[in-house]
Amino acid sequence: MNWPMHGANPQYIYEKTNVEMPVNTIDFSANINPLGPPTILSDNWDDLFQTVHLYPDPYASSLKEKISDQYGLCPKQLLIGNGAAEIISLLGRILARKKVLLLQPAFSEYEEVCKINHCDIYHHYLTAETGWELNPSNLEKDIRHVDALFLCNPNNPTGIFYPKQVVEELLVICKKNDCYVILDEAFYDFVIGYEDMLPLLKKFSNLIIIRSLTKMYSIPGIRLGYAFASEELIAKLQQFQSQWSINGIALRVGELLMGQEMFLNKTQSYMEEEKKRLFSFFNKQQFAYSTSAANYYLLRDTSFTDQKELLIFLLNNGIIARHTYNYPGLDGRWLRFAIKSKLENQQLQGVLAKWKQSHPSSL
Amino acid sequence: MNWPMHGANPQYIYEKTNVEMPVNTIDFSANINPLGPPTILSDNWDDLFQTVHLYPDPYASSLKEKISDQYGLCPKQLLIGNGAAEIISLLGRILARKKVLLLQPAFSEYEEVCKINHCDIYHHYLTAETGWELNPSNLEKDIRHVDALFLCNPNNPTGIFYPKQVVEELLVICKKNDCYVILDEAFYDFVIGYEDMLPLLKKFSNLIIIRSLTKMYSIPGIRLGYAFASEELIAKLQQFQSQWSINGIALRVGELLMGQEMFLNKTQSYMEEEKKRLFSFFNKQQFAYSTSAANYYLLRDTSFTDQKELLIFLLNNGIIARHTYNYPGLDGRWLRFAIKSKLENQQLQGVLAKWKQSHPSSL
Repeated sequence: MNWPMHGANPQYIYEKTNVEMPVNTIDFSANINPLGPPTILSDNWDDLFQTVHLYPDPYASSLKEKISDQYGLCPKQLLIGNGAAEIISLLGRILARKKVLLLQPAFSEYEEVCKINHCDIYHHYLTAETGWELNPSNLEKDIRHVDALFLCNPNNPTGIFYPKQVVEELLVICKKNDCYVILDEAFYDFVIGYEDMLPLLKKFSNLIIIRSLTKMYSIPGIRLGYAFASEELIAKLQQFQSQWSINGIALRVGELLMGQEMFLNKTQSYMEEEKKRLFSFFNKQQFAYSTSAANYYLLRDTSFTDQKELLIFLLNNGIIARHTYNYPGLDGRWLRFAIKSKLENQQLQGVLAKWKQSHPSSL
Repeated sequence: MNWPMHGANPQYIYEKTNVEMPVNTIDFSANINPLGPPTILSDNWDDLFQTVHLYPDPYASSLKEKISDQYGLCPKQLLIGNGAAEIISLLGRILARKKVLLLQPAFSEYEEVCKINHCDIYHHYLTAETGWELNPSNLEKDIRHVDALFLCNPNNPTGIFYPKQVVEELLVICKKNDCYVILDEAFYDFVIGYEDMLPLLKKFSNLIIIRSLTKMYSIPGIRLGYAFASEELIAKLQQFQSQWSINGIALRVGELLMGQEMFLNKTQSYMEEEKKRLFSFFNKQQFAYSTSAANYYLLRDTSFTDQKELLIFLLNNGIIARHTYNYPGLDGRWLRFAIKSKLENQQLQGVLAKWKQSHPSSL
């Protein structure tokens, strides 16, 4: 059996590692906001039953209008997806047999989708030693011979956020070299002080911005994401989308979630506070971690190269971390954890402290 | 503006025809069981909220096991889809640039998907004059030079059902000529006395059977379909599917709906009774109709070639029929109607009677 491709559905990592699944577990492997879903969803759940017996609008007109209004862009520049994952899959169709650059480590779906579409895949490795720093000028040589690159910002799995200036620098180089930039902003709304990248679409016709409602609003079961790009590109992507791809519940939920500013602000404050507490604990316990701007972080016990022993220890203690064996450039040397409820984060700290007692850092 | 591609979402046909949409309308353009959704769904709706905050199982293991158990086949022969429409879209990937035969008139998605995947498309027309009879031996010449054919059974939009013997005869010819048969059984469970086609999979590795839970269980908003085929073919299709394509609600709803025999039987009896009543009315009023085995039928006023005048008359009276302009071989000469509640069917009869008063049949 292979390592599970993604977090969540923890039965698969217990199967893979042959660890017996305890009765009580906490799943830190899925990066879902613990404060969600917002109450507006539970309040409207009864009404949502009315979407079940109707075909969803295949043009998603109403939701498209709401989202494009909210961001001051034209509905024709917008594609709604059956999750951001569908949008990545659709992008694969237009990248078929082209040359694609992946900034690693990155969300593993980029590579999966490129493989299935027979792309030539190139890797540029951002490294832990520099805090996964991105220096666009270092990429120019690679960009010259590729048709597109994927950048996840804040990056999954590191949580590192690249500010607008860096993204724009990258876009300038890519535009000069006829290279698309696929900017995956699945976690952008967790970033405090985030500067909106959407205005860059005006200047850069080679830019595609993907977003997800899954993470912030805690609705991975519903499947809802979207992308903004040029009208031409959106029309091309749309033609590959299967009919009624976005279910009726998702369409309605998307409308309900537009303008949940208070929920968003509350989440950002919560995450800031929890990160402060967690990172101070990691410093004290001498764990290495990524200075994440998102709702998850990478962690490692620096006494070990491969973190499998820690992963298994955690699984035995009911703590499910995300392995990093399918993140090129990490290759199992880190574990990824979502920021969960205060109580759950404290339970994680307890188990990590127990680990350190039996595996003290070699200084 | 083009004619809407599909039924449902009636705002689009009112826009197209420039008819003002009345306050009260009845949508006969979507072939959805009026007796559904089954009460097991409303009874469990509150619990289904628990699927919202969890990532769906990307392998759909539990639902796959339930469906394959129910039909006595191996889970590896089964693909779950984000609606049957997604399965048709995935089939497009393996049919890309191949030669495909469509038995027309047929569900328009086959042609759409073939076009987008640059297939060479061939048409064989079944005609109203023979009651859309299918004689496989007439197809042999066409089959010799194609790689796949689509057969919808019972056919959408005619409702005509081709018995197992005819399907098997077709399969024999296709197997001999290395031609896949894509058998779309989206409406099979409405057919009284239906003989199970699944056992044909053992004998014919060139057979793909698609089914949908949308129509019988009245859940088009949720998106759920499946396909059975050889393990090799299912694996090929699955690799093109986007990650977490089937939402968590659909996965759970699918499990709830397995084994709803009573609901199914009740529906079949209801449809039989309504068709008897409706068809007798059509005979009396001298409308032509298709002898449908499904939950919809074609209808035409034989005094007119194009049925646009009747379509507009109905729209003005709040009755939404499905146009047939994008069904090659029908080309607007028929209208399609779903069988809805007794009261709604009676309202349709009332409006059709009114039409006949102002447009008496020329005998």
